[in-house]
Amino acid sequence: MSNPSILILPGDGIGPEVMAQVTRIIDWFGDKRDLKFDVETDLVGGAAYDKHGVPLSDETMARAMEVDAVLLGAVGGPKYDNLDFSVKPERGLLRLRKEMDLFSNLRPAQCFDALADFSSLKKDIVSGLDIMIVRELTSGVYFGEPRGIHKEGNERVGVNTQRYTESEIARVARSAFELARKRSNKVCSMEKANVMESGILWRDVVQEIHDAEYPDVELSHMYADNGAMQLVRAPKQFDVIVTDNLFGDVLSDCAAMLTGSLGMLPSASLGLPNAEGRPKALYEPVHGSAPDITGQGKANPIACILSFAMALRYSFDEGEEATRLEKAVEKVLADGVRTADLMGPDGGTPVSTTEMGDVILAAL
Amino acid sequence: MSNPSILILPGDGIGPEVMAQVTRIIDWFGDKRDLKFDVETDLVGGAAYDKHGVPLSDETMARAMEVDAVLLGAVGGPKYDNLDFSVKPERGLLRLRKEMDLFSNLRPAQCFDALADFSSLKKDIVSGLDIMIVRELTSGVYFGEPRGIHKEGNERVGVNTQRYTESEIARVARSAFELARKRSNKVCSMEKANVMESGILWRDVVQEIHDAEYPDVELSHMYADNGAMQLVRAPKQFDVIVTDNLFGDVLSDCAAMLTGSLGMLPSASLGLPNAEGRPKALYEPVHGSAPDITGQGKANPIACILSFAMALRYSFDEGEEATRLEKAVEKVLADGVRTADLMGPDGGTPVSTTEMGDVILAAL
Ligand SMILES: CC(C)[C@H](C(=O)O)[C@@H](O)C(=O)O
Ligand SMILES: CC(C)[C@H](C(=O)O)[C@@H](O)C(=O)O
Repeated sequence: MSNPSILILPGDGIGPEVMAQVTRIIDWFGDKRDLKFDVETDLVGGAAYDKHGVPLSDETMARAMEVDAVLLGAVGGPKYDNLDFSVKPERGLLRLRKEMDLFSNLRPAQCFDALADFSSLKKDIVSGLDIMIVRELTSGVYFGEPRGIHKEGNERVGVNTQRYTESEIARVARSAFELARKRSNKVCSMEKANVMESGILWRDVVQEIHDAEYPDVELSHMYADNGAMQLVRAPKQFDVIVTDNLFGDVLSDCAAMLTGSLGMLPSASLGLPNAEGRPKALYEPVHGSAPDITGQGKANPIACILSFAMALRYSFDEGEEATRLEKAVEKVLADGVRTADLMGPDGGTPVSTTEMGDVILAAL
Repeated sequence: MSNPSILILPGDGIGPEVMAQVTRIIDWFGDKRDLKFDVETDLVGGAAYDKHGVPLSDETMARAMEVDAVLLGAVGGPKYDNLDFSVKPERGLLRLRKEMDLFSNLRPAQCFDALADFSSLKKDIVSGLDIMIVRELTSGVYFGEPRGIHKEGNERVGVNTQRYTESEIARVARSAFELARKRSNKVCSMEKANVMESGILWRDVVQEIHDAEYPDVELSHMYADNGAMQLVRAPKQFDVIVTDNLFGDVLSDCAAMLTGSLGMLPSASLGLPNAEGRPKALYEPVHGSAPDITGQGKANPIACILSFAMALRYSFDEGEEATRLEKAVEKVLADGVRTADLMGPDGGTPVSTTEMGDVILAAL
């Protein structure tokens, strides 16, 4: 049997720097735990545009469809800000999400004990925080048609379409309920059913799937504006949150910032399982390409490393090895090892991106 | 000359309770400051539905168009949750916004010194916070067509349309720039221009209006997801934020919760000025109808009272009287007078809704 395959797309900005540490960790699992992967590397985002004139080539797209998991660093940067919409770095990422049909985006917002002081929120509000946001990732206003800018008389008009089908809502709801069963068995669904019909359908379908298939899970519904408030007021009331593509974008970033350490947060984007039960999958840190610190050895590789841990868990069914990696990261943090973004008033040992890779490898 | 006219729409839940205190304050200004208003009261939301079968009657709508300012309490409640979309309490409010063409919704997020401990955020992050969110209120996905739920094959599909014209963006941008000039002269515009064409148009038009008419104001652009993060991380970086209807809904609630005291926050929704330079205007507290505490004398009337202060400032050009009222509220808070929602670990003097009205009148 051949090794499972991974396509690495480091992308732009700090993407390549943080991904370099992940590569070392993948190698470690091959050497020390006999978990071998066939790894190949390719371009996405601005890096792909520079070479191919598009933010994701058809060849790379085809490979992404074939491999067992994709690891992505980050896309975008000021250099590409004025590119035409159709070739912006983000389009590469959106194409991957859409064509791989990665409808379920898992964004844990977890507060690490050693870092609870980093949050702008009071410690008792966030310590021990462990939320999972499940964001629909292949539909909604990100992809709905009609869209674009056109002229009416002598005015420009900008249009996008929020569109959800019943089955699109049902499948992401199922994925949220499944996750909740492995956690605290609670799902809160967020929309604006009071002003949007697409929100009414969202609410109804989530409720129907619940009643028919997951009656054991505790389900509540909340308007997304109230959701933003409640996340700030008392985030620990939540276990799993399920919401659409656009609300998920904003609310998951809000939740991420509650933890105070964006450089720590991974994400998984999952599609439907194939014949062997393995979902199409893309893993990426929640943080962006951070052009301001690119090339300075300052980037925190942990979010990207924890994204690989999610790959171990969700793509390769290696939950124990994932936990091993997560524990190594926790230990390093508890020991006070800190990249620049984690340097707080409490001091700690400052390290570079590579040195953070070193100590995590040592902790493994 | 006749007195300026005010239409009071107390609405549902705690709306009537908090509005009762505002009425006393309006009377005080008539008696003591010779600022007389012609006040009439009518129904909106569930209360209007109960009587008329619609959440806003045509007669009430017509009066709202005629008066100089509308004060609204709150709409909605569990009793109305299962009503058809077209007659939900919220539709009454949305009809007022749309027909009065109240495109500029001003939502201050201000942290009161006496209440800084109430925030879930650390005191140094929020003390002295003073942001003004300007939310577009008459367009975007709230009103765009096509919309609704239809069948495709045997699936339901939910659709809403995000739509902005150039002039809709231009006028709310102007209102943000005007406000900024009276404050710290800084505007941050938020959208998702990286994924939505309507966001691209938004960004372009805001920039054009800036360059042509307000080059003296400092303008920046931010993606809305990053905006949510930055609000949580370091809210004091902002002065005026301008954004669309839906992002404004979520981001202003997020910002409101930073202050820790939702019961304190007013809002103004303004339209175009009439021949005398007076804009169509509706004032309402940011909080909702709070069905859980309705009828118990627990509601905090301050948000509604401060909404009337905004009316004094923006509709009646009585900035000094507005400040007088705001100062009275601040004094009462500094004295430790507290409705139930403001009772914290630091104690304070607990008062009912009416008693809070009493002490504010006394402070005036
Ligand atoms: C980069 C951008 C297209 C993307 C999004 O809006 O989905 C990002 O913000 C995210 O949340 O993954
Ligand atoms: C009640 C509801 C229709 C309204 C909105 O979504 O605009 C409210 O949330 C608000 O922010 O004023």
